[in-house]
Amino acid sequence: MTQKKVTFDDIARYTNFSKTTISRYFNDPDSLTVKNQDIIAKALVDLNYQENKLAKVLANGKSEFIGIIVPNLYLDYYAEMLNQILNTYEDFGYKFLVFVSKNSEETERRYIQELLAYKIEGMIILSHTISSRELASYDIPIVTIEREDAYVNSVNTDNYMGAVQATSLLYKNDCDILVHINSVVRKEVPAYGRIQGFQDICREHNLQNELILRDLGHSHQEIHRSMLEIYEYLNKKYPHQKKGLFMANDTHANSMLNIIFRDHGTWPDEYRIIGFDDSPIAAQAIIPTSSVGQQIDKIAYEAVELLVSLMSERKKRRPKPQTELIHKNVTPILVRRETTG
Amino acid sequence: MTQKKVTFDDIARYTNFSKTTISRYFNDPDSLTVKNQDIIAKALVDLNYQENKLAKVLANGKSEFIGIIVPNLYLDYYAEMLNQILNTYEDFGYKFLVFVSKNSEETERRYIQELLAYKIEGMIILSHTISSRELASYDIPIVTIEREDAYVNSVNTDNYMGAVQATSLLYKNDCDILVHINSVVRKEVPAYGRIQGFQDICREHNLQNELILRDLGHSHQEIHRSMLEIYEYLNKKYPHQKKGLFMANDTHANSMLNIIFRDHGTWPDEYRIIGFDDSPIAAQAIIPTSSVGQQIDKIAYEAVELLVSLMSERKKRRPKPQTELIHKNVTPILVRRETTG
Repeated sequence: MTQKKVTFDDIARYTNFSKTTISRYFNDPDSLTVKNQDIIAKALVDLNYQENKLAKVLANGKSEFIGIIVPNLYLDYYAEMLNQILNTYEDFGYKFLVFVSKNSEETERRYIQELLAYKIEGMIILSHTISSRELASYDIPIVTIEREDAYVNSVNTDNYMGAVQATSLLYKNDCDILVHINSVVRKEVPAYGRIQGFQDICREHNLQNELILRDLGHSHQEIHRSMLEIYEYLNKKYPHQKKGLFMANDTHANSMLNIIFRDHGTWPDEYRIIGFDDSPIAAQAIIPTSSVGQQIDKIAYEAVELLVSLMSERKKRRPKPQTELIHKNVTPILVRRETTG
Repeated sequence: MTQKKVTFDDIARYTNFSKTTISRYFNDPDSLTVKNQDIIAKALVDLNYQENKLAKVLANGKSEFIGIIVPNLYLDYYAEMLNQILNTYEDFGYKFLVFVSKNSEETERRYIQELLAYKIEGMIILSHTISSRELASYDIPIVTIEREDAYVNSVNTDNYMGAVQATSLLYKNDCDILVHINSVVRKEVPAYGRIQGFQDICREHNLQNELILRDLGHSHQEIHRSMLEIYEYLNKKYPHQKKGLFMANDTHANSMLNIIFRDHGTWPDEYRIIGFDDSPIAAQAIIPTSSVGQQIDKIAYEAVELLVSLMSERKKRRPKPQTELIHKNVTPILVRRETTG
C-alpha cells in the first residue's frame, strides 16, 4: 500500500485521548462511553484510517464470516439459493465464504477445518456429504437447507404440502392415472415428503396411481434416456388414458415435455405435467410448464436470520445453551402454466 | 471451542515481553522491531496459537482470501464461472469471499472496502459496475473476466473468434441472409468482438446480412416479446429465404427457437440458429441447439492462476512492480447440434 499508514499515535493526537483509550476502542469498545466511541469513529474517517478488521476479530472473536457449502451450482435451485443468501449482506452485514462440495467428503471436511481456524461464526450447509451428527460436533452455529437435519437446525420447503398441491391440481385436471416420477429418495431427506404427499392424496381420493422411483441419471443425456423409456412404458401401459405426471424437478419435467411435444408436434390432451422448483426452465420451455415454486428468497432469508440469532447468542457474556433444535418449514407456491388446466 | 484458550498473559510470560507489547503486536505490529515480531510469531506457534489463522495473517499479511464479485447468478454463465473458480480451492488453497453486485455501485464499493479491511490478497471481478480505472486504484492484485479491462489484468473469451466460427457455420449452411441479434454492446466490452467477427465474415464472403442491435429486455417475458417481434419482422422482410440467426446467447436462442418451432409444429428448413455460451438450455431445448461454447473451466483456472502469480509477487521481500498489463484470450469451441447442418 502506498498510502501513509495512520497509527494509534495519530488517532490519539487527533482526538486528545490516550493511546490506551484508542487501543481499548478497538479491543473492547464497550468499555468506552458511546460519546467517546463516536468521537473516535469520526476521527478514523477524518484521518482516512484503513481499519484492520482482523485485529478486531482476534480481540473479540467476531469475524463476521459465514461459511456456505453447496453441492453444486449447475442446478438453478442451488445457484438461486446461493444468490439469495449472498444478498442478505445488505441486511445483516455478514460476509460469505463459499465452497462447492462436489461430494468429496474429505475435501469438504478439510475446508470446514480451515474455516473454523479462521474463526468463522457460523455455517449454512446444503450439501449432503457430512452427517448432521458430525456437523453438530463442530460446536459452531449451523443451519442446513433441504438435507438430513436430525442433529442440526434447518429451514426447509414444506415438501409434503408441495406434493399435495401438485397432486390435487392433476386430480382436478381429470387425469385417469397419476404418476410420480422421482429418483430413490432417502426417508431422512426433506424431499421425501413429496412422495408421501403424492401417496396420501391418491389414497384420500382413491385415485389410480403409480410411483416410479429409480436412478434417473445426472447428465442431460442420461435423464433424456430415462424419460424416453418411461414415456414408452406409460404409453404402452395406459393407452388412451389421460396421464397426469408429477415430476421431481423442472429439469426432468422439461425433458419429458420435449419428448411428448416432439412425438405429437403439439401438446396433446392426453398428458398433464407439473414440475418442482419453478426454475427458469419451467417458464422457458416449449410449453410454459406448471411447477411447485419454492420460496427460495424466503428460505434463504430465514436461514440467515436464524443463524444470526444463534451467533448473537454465542457472543453474549452468558450465552444460553440451545435446548431444542429449530426446524422451520416454508410453504411452497403452486405456479399454474399451460401444461395443466 | 473446548481447547484451552491461549491468552495474551500466556504469550507475555512465554516471551518475557509485557502484555502491552503483545497487544501492540496484534494491533500495530510495525511499532515493534522485526526481530521482536519474529520472537512473538514463533511463540504463537510454540504455544499452539496457530489454530487461529488470523493471528498468522496479521503477522505476515497472507490472508489466503480472494474476493469475487459477480453481477448475478441467474445466468448459467456466471453460476458456472463461479463454480469453476471455487473449484480451484483444491489446486491453490485460496478461500473465496463471494458478492453479488446487482448493479448497486455504492454497495459494491462498500463491500470492497470491507474486503480490503480484512486484508484479502486479491480480487476477481465479473461485474461491470466499477470502472477498471477505479479498480486499479485499490492497489491490490485484480483480474477481471469479460468486462471493460483497460486498466486491469484480465482473462476473456476470444469473442471475435467465436463469432467467426458461428458466422462461418451459418454460411456453410447455405443461408440466404445472415442475421446477428444482440443488445447494444459498448465497444470497450470484450463481447463487442462478436459483432465485429460477424461483420468481418459477412464482408469477406460478401453475404447479405443484417445487424439487429436493440434492448431485448431482461426478464423471460421481455425477451420472448422482443423475439416475437423480430421473428415477424424477419418473416415479412425475407419471405422464403433461408435465414441464419446468430444469437447473443443461448437464452435468446431458446426463446427464438420455441417461437419458430411452435409456429411450424416442427423445425423448418427455412431457419438455422446458433447461440453463444453452450449453457445447459442449449442441450435441453426442444431441438438441441448449436452454440459457441466458452471454455469456462479454462477461463476460471487461468484467472485464478494469473491472480495467484500476482499475489505471490507482492509477498516477496522486494516485489517487482508490474510494468505491463496482462490480457489473456481463451479460444471458444463450436458445438454443433441439430439447429445447424
